[in-house]
Amino acid sequence: MPSARIDASQPCLTVLITIQVDDERREAFLEDIRRAVDEVVAPLPGFISASFHRRTDAPGCLNYAQWESQEAYQGFTQNAAVAERVWGIFARHDAHASIGSYEVLGTHLPPGQD
Amino acid sequence: MPSARIDASQPCLTVLITIQVDDERREAFLEDIRRAVDEVVAPLPGFISASFHRRTDAPGCLNYAQWESQEAYQGFTQNAAVAERVWGIFARHDAHASIGSYEVLGTHLPPGQD
Repeated sequence: MPSARIDASQPCLTVLITIQVDDERREAFLEDIRRAVDEVVAPLPGFISASFHRRTDAPGCLNYAQWESQEAYQGFTQNAAVAERVWGIFARHDAHASIGSYEVLGTHLPPGQD
Repeated sequence: MPSARIDASQPCLTVLITIQVDDERREAFLEDIRRAVDEVVAPLPGFISASFHRRTDAPGCLNYAQWESQEAYQGFTQNAAVAERVWGIFARHDAHASIGSYEVLGTHLPPGQD
């Protein structure tokens, strides 16, 4: 099972995409967007990972994505064919994204595990 | 260097805390809140990890936290002494949190790595 690692010693750009989508459209949206990530986003240079989450206390979902650098992320956002595929899926399911860029400062673990 | 793993095969409750805090107060807030996490949150039963991020495209920061279960997370939120310590730090730095609960659906990696 693939997994992502949040690790401050491996600098990367974290991009958090908070997605508003109606509950009854969420599964179909997620199926489409996850296929698109596999087909056109994951092969791009500098892509590290995309972890999809389902919100459990409200409608909506989340993508915690990691890119090697700001430049790699811009290569994605400025790729017209990829953007058309991705944003077309958002439009088709009436989904809306809020996007923020972050850097990891550090991870806290239970005592004795760090 | 401690790191967190986002892994759909290890079910957990993901809690995303998006934090609004003025730029000039951010470092002091983070120092206080990260010390509190080490001292009073990380030792709680069912705590898995807390990963702090600094937002790079706007003010604010983020905590991507993982708990073993909803019950473990409630053990934290209903612990009056811990809540007083944590929310006291938010109040002291005029910081505000938006909190959402999530479950991990899966992670996408570059072709050949999954």
